[in-house]
Amino acid sequence: MCRFAAYLGRPLLVNDVMSRPKVSLIRQSSSATETDVTLNGDGFGIGWYNLEVSEVPAVFVSALPAWNDMNLRNMSHQIQSPCFFAHVRAAEEGVVNQSNCHPFHYQKFLMMHNGGVGGFKKIKLAMLNALKPEFFHNIKGQTDSELLFALWLSSLEEFESPKESDFISAWERTLTTLTTLQKAAGVKEETYLNVIISDGHQLIGLRYVNNADQALTLHYAEGSAFVHHHGVCRMLPKENDHLHHPDNAVLIASERLTGDTPEWKDVPKNHYIFVDHHKRVVLTPVKN
Amino acid sequence: MCRFAAYLGRPLLVNDVMSRPKVSLIRQSSSATETDVTLNGDGFGIGWYNLEVSEVPAVFVSALPAWNDMNLRNMSHQIQSPCFFAHVRAAEEGVVNQSNCHPFHYQKFLMMHNGGVGGFKKIKLAMLNALKPEFFHNIKGQTDSELLFALWLSSLEEFESPKESDFISAWERTLTTLTTLQKAAGVKEETYLNVIISDGHQLIGLRYVNNADQALTLHYAEGSAFVHHHGVCRMLPKENDHLHHPDNAVLIASERLTGDTPEWKDVPKNHYIFVDHHKRVVLTPVKN
Amino acid sequence: MCRFAAYLGRPLLVNDVMSRPKVSLIRQSSSATETDVTLNGDGFGIGWYNLEVSEVPAVFVSALPAWNDMNLRNMSHQIQSPCFFAHVRAAEEGVVNQSNCHPFHYQKFLMMHNGGVGGFKKIKLAMLNALKPEFFHNIKGQTDSELLFALWLSSLEEFESPKESDFISAWERTLTTLTTLQKAAGVKEETYLNVIISDGHQLIGLRYVNNADQALTLHYAEGSAFVHHHGVCRMLPKENDHLHHPDNAVLIASERLTGDTPEWKDVPKNHYIFVDHHKRVVLTPVKN
Amino acid sequence: MCRFAAYLGRPLLVNDVMSRPKVSLIRQSSSATETDVTLNGDGFGIGWYNLEVSEVPAVFVSALPAWNDMNLRNMSHQIQSPCFFAHVRAAEEGVVNQSNCHPFHYQKFLMMHNGGVGGFKKIKLAMLNALKPEFFHNIKGQTDSELLFALWLSSLEEFESPKESDFISAWERTLTTLTTLQKAAGVKEETYLNVIISDGHQLIGLRYVNNADQALTLHYAEGSAFVHHHGVCRMLPKENDHLHHPDNAVLIASERLTGDTPEWKDVPKNHYIFVDHHKRVVLTPVKN
Repeated sequence: MCRFAAYLGRPLLVNDVMSRPKVSLIRQSSSATETDVTLNGDGFGIGWYNLEVSEVPAVFVSALPAWNDMNLRNMSHQIQSPCFFAHVRAAEEGVVNQSNCHPFHYQKFLMMHNGGVGGFKKIKLAMLNALKPEFFHNIKGQTDSELLFALWLSSLEEFESPKESDFISAWERTLTTLTTLQKAAGVKEETYLNVIISDGHQLIGLRYVNNADQALTLHYAEGSAFVHHHGVCRMLPKENDHLHHPDNAVLIASERLTGDTPEWKDVPKNHYIFVDHHKRVVLTPVKN
Repeated sequence: MCRFAAYLGRPLLVNDVMSRPKVSLIRQSSSATETDVTLNGDGFGIGWYNLEVSEVPAVFVSALPAWNDMNLRNMSHQIQSPCFFAHVRAAEEGVVNQSNCHPFHYQKFLMMHNGGVGGFKKIKLAMLNALKPEFFHNIKGQTDSELLFALWLSSLEEFESPKESDFISAWERTLTTLTTLQKAAGVKEETYLNVIISDGHQLIGLRYVNNADQALTLHYAEGSAFVHHHGVCRMLPKENDHLHHPDNAVLIASERLTGDTPEWKDVPKNHYIFVDHHKRVVLTPVKN
Repeated sequence: MCRFAAYLGRPLLVNDVMSRPKVSLIRQSSSATETDVTLNGDGFGIGWYNLEVSEVPAVFVSALPAWNDMNLRNMSHQIQSPCFFAHVRAAEEGVVNQSNCHPFHYQKFLMMHNGGVGGFKKIKLAMLNALKPEFFHNIKGQTDSELLFALWLSSLEEFESPKESDFISAWERTLTTLTTLQKAAGVKEETYLNVIISDGHQLIGLRYVNNADQALTLHYAEGSAFVHHHGVCRMLPKENDHLHHPDNAVLIASERLTGDTPEWKDVPKNHYIFVDHHKRVVLTPVKN
Repeated sequence: MCRFAAYLGRPLLVNDVMSRPKVSLIRQSSSATETDVTLNGDGFGIGWYNLEVSEVPAVFVSALPAWNDMNLRNMSHQIQSPCFFAHVRAAEEGVVNQSNCHPFHYQKFLMMHNGGVGGFKKIKLAMLNALKPEFFHNIKGQTDSELLFALWLSSLEEFESPKESDFISAWERTLTTLTTLQKAAGVKEETYLNVIISDGHQLIGLRYVNNADQALTLHYAEGSAFVHHHGVCRMLPKENDHLHHPDNAVLIASERLTGDTPEWKDVPKNHYIFVDHHKRVVLTPVKN
């Protein structure tokens, strides 16, 4: 089912999400707890931005399980970024190779997904036909996730400087297309879309379910900084921050990285969570 | 541009094609001579049949160059087969990963390709729409080669026990579809299709060019057996075979494996070469 | 801790051990049950003999987990052999790469290991110094397992046509060297050696423990044939074999492949299990 | 024979060495020109420092050829560093896997090598015995290069804050050990050591040959900045720098990255080239 975490805030080490927290992504790769599929060993990936160097994020993916990739171990103590994604995969659609690992990227955009498009096989060709050519030709793998990203990109009207409303309306169009195609194909299967998309300045999360009651778990934590002190990671609350960190920090994750601690809230079912470049969080219900 | 060799005959070691001949596939992977693209280091693959075990061939592919893959080195002295394919890749369409390595397979069929579909980007979506669903869903990579194979499979009417005429008429329908789609998309680029397809009992080769004068090189050699004596590989001529090998042997290859020796003939341009289960060779011009 | 299975008998499909049994090696790679370490996702390997082709076995290893390696899936339905090894790894010594995957091989010999050499770091250099040069130079990885194999090879006096007594006396010398080096280095840690070695004609297993009470699990099953009928794998008892299979079959495995069925016996602690080319099983206590 | 480049100076994009120059490392991986071995397709690696994040460099290696590694392509436009190494490998000692790829690292040190230790097989065990335990246990692969690095680390007396004299005297001790071991083993083969070592603040290069007349090529270029303008890379001369770059820049490389342009000088045979944290270059003859 995959597990993921996204971060936007003051520069943070990838390891502070990937390996240091109690419920780190690496730990989730071998023993996830908030899902039936505890093993997420079918590859992994990280994507990160350093906007002063390039608008285009760096992406590193591997078909190996996250727990034993030498490159991840030898790089992630050095990669610090104000905006990054980390993903561990449990394959449903698509074989295990680098091209099917998240996050996916197109120019300045990163995307990762946990869940599945209901009846994907029945609508895959129709989805391909619904894409704009440039996004069709960017497809490198076989997953529903990558195709969903291409559909979202095809639905994005303001490509240069997208604002919250652009991110959301691209999603609304995407969901309309998706449900239209599913209806036409008689799809009754559940669709689970826990998705994050960013352009490095801001990010949008979606927690969506269709044809089922329960959405997959999706949590977020906001504060003044996500810190690692005395072997423990935690999100410093804003009111309580004696170091007066100038920037804020937001984490969105499939599982609560620090365990069952009070900093985590649930993204409500069928809602968007938007984090703007001031790290302000806005929750908006899906209209579709 | 890729290089390949296919064998049908009495059981032969994969190494007798892959590493032992003067112009072995491994040598072609780093220094091909009958082409402008001398380096074919973007992955490789082998596929082989042992029909008494299964109708479905074994396939081993790797994104590493053939010259330094440990598994290839540690297996190919042991793999003996009456029908096998070997391919070294120079990527044109599709990133370098296992899913884009030849040979491709579907149930009992193996396919490999050297060349390129003219204007592929312009007709890729139309090609996908032309496929039967089962072959569409079998697509794992991004190459024109894999799509061409899916188109051929979609054009094959007799799937269970195909005969020479079935192999050829599937190709004729495939070429008709291809040129129709290319015409509709205004494609002027050259198409080069040197392709081998087999079901383990018989195989068909195609040497085809469109919108250009010269086809890519494609040679074949037939004899009583392909043997390795005193460090030299050669095809024993039938009339000269004092060992009276009961079976015959046919090789089809991009480059003459034994160098410029007399056993090799050219497959004529825009011709099929069909090798039946008695290892009889028939050359037929492409009608299309 | 790793899991493995070895087979000697009438030609058998690798899949009849790797994927088809209830407790197949692939299932053990993600959820082993007879051990504390349930996850064996740090690479895997198979090695197999076809003596009419070559005395030297074929070896295929991968750093990916066994459950999602495309090559394994695309080859193992075709690989049939009268003697083969299969191993899934849970790394203790050595990073996860192909060079640290079992089985290890040297000319005609295959070896695989489940367990660990007590105090390996303290005696590693001394072990290297104890090797004959040819085996020292064959070392490609970092594991205690590969070094143990090199030590056994260095202790083998009859290399050409080893008999049961040669296999065993090489092990006795190996264990003497090992315990001597451990004593000299003040090692108190437990040593667990569940090891299989073969030359393709016969094989020896060892279930050994030192500085601990409990050895790791090691089972064997003998019968007239290991068969797969109506979706169920089982070892046919010799007296009951209405098909009168001409050859016998022996399996040795970390976990009972068919579950808790009566065909499985334990290899006693600190015993060798030798299977000769008639598939006769002899159990001999370790003297050392 | 391998090819490499090292950079110390104001922050520079890895791509400005790896892919943008006329004679980029990626181009050298498929067609090197200043050597007999034009193909360096047996893996590659990069290592880079960002000292404000960690003293320990990041290292990314891959067994794929540099020209087609997706991760390299998707990361190297984002990796900017004041000190980095890039290496493309042509394997002589050691199979092609990640553990044998350069650069090697130990805590804050990076090392890469182009060349070969004469008679390596004859002295490998003696070299292992000459190591301090902590460096012996850090060995992960099979190459002479990694062992040479371990020998240098074992010879380094000032580990915390090494100065030029410490780097050099560690090399002198290393060369003494090496030639002593070679003499004892009767080695007559050529030794070629083109090596770079850094701690992120400063770096030392060595161009050394023994038992042969010609050393391998090693060049360096110093200036105010290495820049990429209008598709051309070049080293700005200090006196000529109208932008008054505050820092300087030094490149050391097997091949002149910008082609036969005047900024390149040869490191003399059997000399060290030391670049201090002010980017001052000092050439010192090897005493040994």
